[in-house]
Amino acid sequence: MRIDVLSLFPSMFTGVFEQSIIGKAQERHLLDIEVTDFRAYSDDVKHHTVDDYPYGGGEGMLLKPQPIFAAMADLEQKQPGPKRVILLDPAGKKFDQSVAADLSASDHLVFICGHYEGYDERIRHLVTDEISLGDYVLTGGELGAMVVIDTTVRLLPGVLGNESSADNDSFSDGLLEHPQYTRPADFNGMQVPPVLTNGNHQLIAQWQEKESLRRTYLRRPDLLQKVTLTEQQQKLLAEVKTEEDAK
Amino acid sequence: MRIDVLSLFPSMFTGVFEQSIIGKAQERHLLDIEVTDFRAYSDDVKHHTVDDYPYGGGEGMLLKPQPIFAAMADLEQKQPGPKRVILLDPAGKKFDQSVAADLSASDHLVFICGHYEGYDERIRHLVTDEISLGDYVLTGGELGAMVVIDTTVRLLPGVLGNESSADNDSFSDGLLEHPQYTRPADFNGMQVPPVLTNGNHQLIAQWQEKESLRRTYLRRPDLLQKVTLTEQQQKLLAEVKTEEDAK
Repeated sequence: MRIDVLSLFPSMFTGVFEQSIIGKAQERHLLDIEVTDFRAYSDDVKHHTVDDYPYGGGEGMLLKPQPIFAAMADLEQKQPGPKRVILLDPAGKKFDQSVAADLSASDHLVFICGHYEGYDERIRHLVTDEISLGDYVLTGGELGAMVVIDTTVRLLPGVLGNESSADNDSFSDGLLEHPQYTRPADFNGMQVPPVLTNGNHQLIAQWQEKESLRRTYLRRPDLLQKVTLTEQQQKLLAEVKTEEDAK
Repeated sequence: MRIDVLSLFPSMFTGVFEQSIIGKAQERHLLDIEVTDFRAYSDDVKHHTVDDYPYGGGEGMLLKPQPIFAAMADLEQKQPGPKRVILLDPAGKKFDQSVAADLSASDHLVFICGHYEGYDERIRHLVTDEISLGDYVLTGGELGAMVVIDTTVRLLPGVLGNESSADNDSFSDGLLEHPQYTRPADFNGMQVPPVLTNGNHQLIAQWQEKESLRRTYLRRPDLLQKVTLTEQQQKLLAEVKTEEDAK
């Protein structure tokens, strides 16, 4: 996969792209990322301005269309071919694991990172996907792009060390993940549930499935409406409901 | 406000915390951020391990409780007083603008960034707030912490250059922001709506309010259920519905 990022703050990405899964994916040649400062494309050769006052008044500055259109035209020339061009915007489609899966099937993603108060509406003509991280407002599109890139890249085959890791994630089967424990079995008086240390794999698997259902029932009952439970899961969920309602 | 971040990848934060609104807030002495590598607190003096295999089997490694408990105890000694201790987790409370407003009223936030497959369940005993960015899975808690910090810090008084800037954001009045335009009035044949260039401030304000309602109606009708509209807004929304339903 190739990813291009258009941003006025390329150095924000350096630490994030070098570390962690994104860095590993690049080392393994599964991912090629380039961040371009679109200020370089401003037709204002003297001051390299990229923003201007909004028509009709209002606070703050808006990104002008020209530098971003010029940067995209140059990118299209250097890297022709189909692209998903993504704009992070609070009015966009809510990002979730299924959007990440959809993006991970693409060969080339381009992120346009807004900043200042917003951007000229005409910039949306360049865009194939408007995405919102959630109902909150960030200072710029940079962090949003990083989040979408991290979530998407870890779904690429071969990126996670263990192929099956992503399959155990919360949401991958529509449920929250069960609680997990590591050594020591007693930490400051806090114990690991005995079932996990007795070596009976069938009981352990059943405990994990039940606690996954319990956590989802207690914290995100909306998720249970969207999944089709197996007969075994339905039975475990009934037990969870009886136990929790008796508390 | 003081913010502490416990992370195994401190260099991920460098570029983000130096740039943008978070850097500015620190320059203006409105914010004091420190990132601590909790690997330094591992009681394994030889290998500084922070993770271990999960009880009951399963893929990947889990963060052990010991290094994080030790780092928190040290932080409590150096920085006593009330704290919000935040864990980014897909099973947490969904982050939104009201959670950010709530956090922005606190004097001290601490972020515990998980990594690897997850963390020992007992780490939750240290935590006051479990927060989820959305229904998607990130490689670690670092990007989530950055998003929560950016969203929260820009709400602190004096952080945004213009005090009123945050009041115009999407969601601040429960609606999406109206489209915005800057010069030129004609860019490659794409025009700015004439009302914005005619100088009639009353008409401009009405256009902006109506287009904010239109965008919300078309893209996020769920938001309209949650706000109390003024009489003027109700009238404009009725016009929008008539216009859109006729399309």
